[in-house]
Amino acid sequence: MYKLSIDAMSGDLGSAIVVEACEMFIKSHHDAELYVTGKKEELEKLSSYPHIHIVDARDIVKMDDGIMSVRRKKESSMVKAVMMAREGIVDGVVSCGSTGAFYTSAMLFLKRIEGVEKSCLMVMMPTYNGKGMAMLDVGANAENTAEQLYDFAIMGYIYAKNIRGIQQPRVALLNIGTESKKGDETHQKAYQLLQQSDRLHFVGNVEGRDILSGDYDVVVTDGFSGNIALKTCEGVAGTLMKMIKESMMSSFKGKLGALLAKSSLYSLKEKFDYKSVGGALMMGFEKAVVKAHGASDAKAFSNAMDLAYQMVKMDVVGQMKEGLSQK
Amino acid sequence: MYKLSIDAMSGDLGSAIVVEACEMFIKSHHDAELYVTGKKEELEKLSSYPHIHIVDARDIVKMDDGIMSVRRKKESSMVKAVMMAREGIVDGVVSCGSTGAFYTSAMLFLKRIEGVEKSCLMVMMPTYNGKGMAMLDVGANAENTAEQLYDFAIMGYIYAKNIRGIQQPRVALLNIGTESKKGDETHQKAYQLLQQSDRLHFVGNVEGRDILSGDYDVVVTDGFSGNIALKTCEGVAGTLMKMIKESMMSSFKGKLGALLAKSSLYSLKEKFDYKSVGGALMMGFEKAVVKAHGASDAKAFSNAMDLAYQMVKMDVVGQMKEGLSQK
Repeated sequence: MYKLSIDAMSGDLGSAIVVEACEMFIKSHHDAELYVTGKKEELEKLSSYPHIHIVDARDIVKMDDGIMSVRRKKESSMVKAVMMAREGIVDGVVSCGSTGAFYTSAMLFLKRIEGVEKSCLMVMMPTYNGKGMAMLDVGANAENTAEQLYDFAIMGYIYAKNIRGIQQPRVALLNIGTESKKGDETHQKAYQLLQQSDRLHFVGNVEGRDILSGDYDVVVTDGFSGNIALKTCEGVAGTLMKMIKESMMSSFKGKLGALLAKSSLYSLKEKFDYKSVGGALMMGFEKAVVKAHGASDAKAFSNAMDLAYQMVKMDVVGQMKEGLSQK
Repeated sequence: MYKLSIDAMSGDLGSAIVVEACEMFIKSHHDAELYVTGKKEELEKLSSYPHIHIVDARDIVKMDDGIMSVRRKKESSMVKAVMMAREGIVDGVVSCGSTGAFYTSAMLFLKRIEGVEKSCLMVMMPTYNGKGMAMLDVGANAENTAEQLYDFAIMGYIYAKNIRGIQQPRVALLNIGTESKKGDETHQKAYQLLQQSDRLHFVGNVEGRDILSGDYDVVVTDGFSGNIALKTCEGVAGTLMKMIKESMMSSFKGKLGALLAKSSLYSLKEKFDYKSVGGALMMGFEKAVVKAHGASDAKAFSNAMDLAYQMVKMDVVGQMKEGLSQK
């Protein structure tokens, strides 16, 4: 059985959507066992499923609690879920609570894979060809060494290969030019490490303008630049959609056009909505740690659960251990 | 008279558009004098204007020449234009040649303002409210110190105040969070320097997702992150426009809608087109150095000339000297 702990309480939309997601999930995953943490009276509906265990947790880490609140909120659904991973009861943990708090509790309570200096945050980004790419680190670290960037690359590569089923994932380094000598010392050195490695398929530097082209499966970046790139993507996409809407509404012809084109535009918005991607992965820990988006609906949350399940089933952590031990 | 040198040869579209731009410019700027460098037989049309001097230059720095080509191509229109600024014949220089080569020739041949450790590249970015904001450095440097970021902020502030006429430009620092303690040591220190300064109006950190909001007039960033942010903007905008087009073309209703909405979408594209902004400024030199876009038409090129003219007329360099001497 593949065992996961599920934090039912920390999302913006409360426990109801998590309960629904657990029901959806357990019906289609017969080799999975869930430990759901939260106020037991809100989780009663799940008690009829033999593979779901309800773990009563009276406290909640709120979205606006400081990240360090996880130190004292030991009775919270989030910390209890993480502790079950720490204690080896489960191999994966899923939460849709505050990213900062969840990441901090993973850092505080979970072991890192041996040889990994820094854990990091990975997100799936939409690409032009619709296949998406994985970018890491998108902000867990304010700065990284070349060796850490190399570790991120290995982790992203193993993820793309095993979870996304890509035979030979194309790994690129986010930099300010494509030539090997571009960027600061750290990025030049990272380029060398990646270039020399026979444990992944490095295709060179990628500039900001090409990350969404679909030509790369994994984009490796230091946490500072990665965070800037991720948030700039979000900002531009949001601004542009808003401008398109207004620009079309400013003339009668445009308005009529917008009306007719609405469903096309809407489906596009979905495709480009970072929220629909279903979450971020916290990489480098001995357990699968998946952050579902705070505003996840039941479908999105169960997608995040499925991701954690796949990570456990494919033993991605074990493969990362192996990949990273042979540096 | 305000004197500018104009490189007529290095753009993608040849000298004809520069000749046209010079004619447009000189008719509306009676206190300006131009020194136009290039093959004199291509510039003949300009010889009838008393305030235009033709400076014969037989060589051309091509777009795909290495940046160091400016060292040997002393007879090129680009280097000759820069040398006229070096020799004090003009106070500003405009080119639409290769950004790298033009920036390198400024670094090689022009003095930096005293006290400025690093020159940098500044671009105007479109914002949601249509007013735009200035971002610097967008890639001249691969890394920067906190003190250099402070210099960039002062330069951006003085530019926004004098050239854009903003009473109290709002200066923000691009970072991975809004709190003062966010980011690496350099950015934390830069925050302190900016916060303590009474020579500009610092409004705090800005994240990637908010740079285009219109809430900031100047966004200060190290060259690495700034380059990533700029190019990510370009990439997302381009990808999104392409996806919108295809998504609309995939259904009959969408197609009809697109047809009707075409002019709205087109005007939006213009607004968001980094090419139409008219160029980048190379900041930190004792002369006004303006890079017009390589594919500039006559109107865009004459906008770039006007920018250089305004920089000279308002003595922006002089004000930067003053602002930077009082750190």
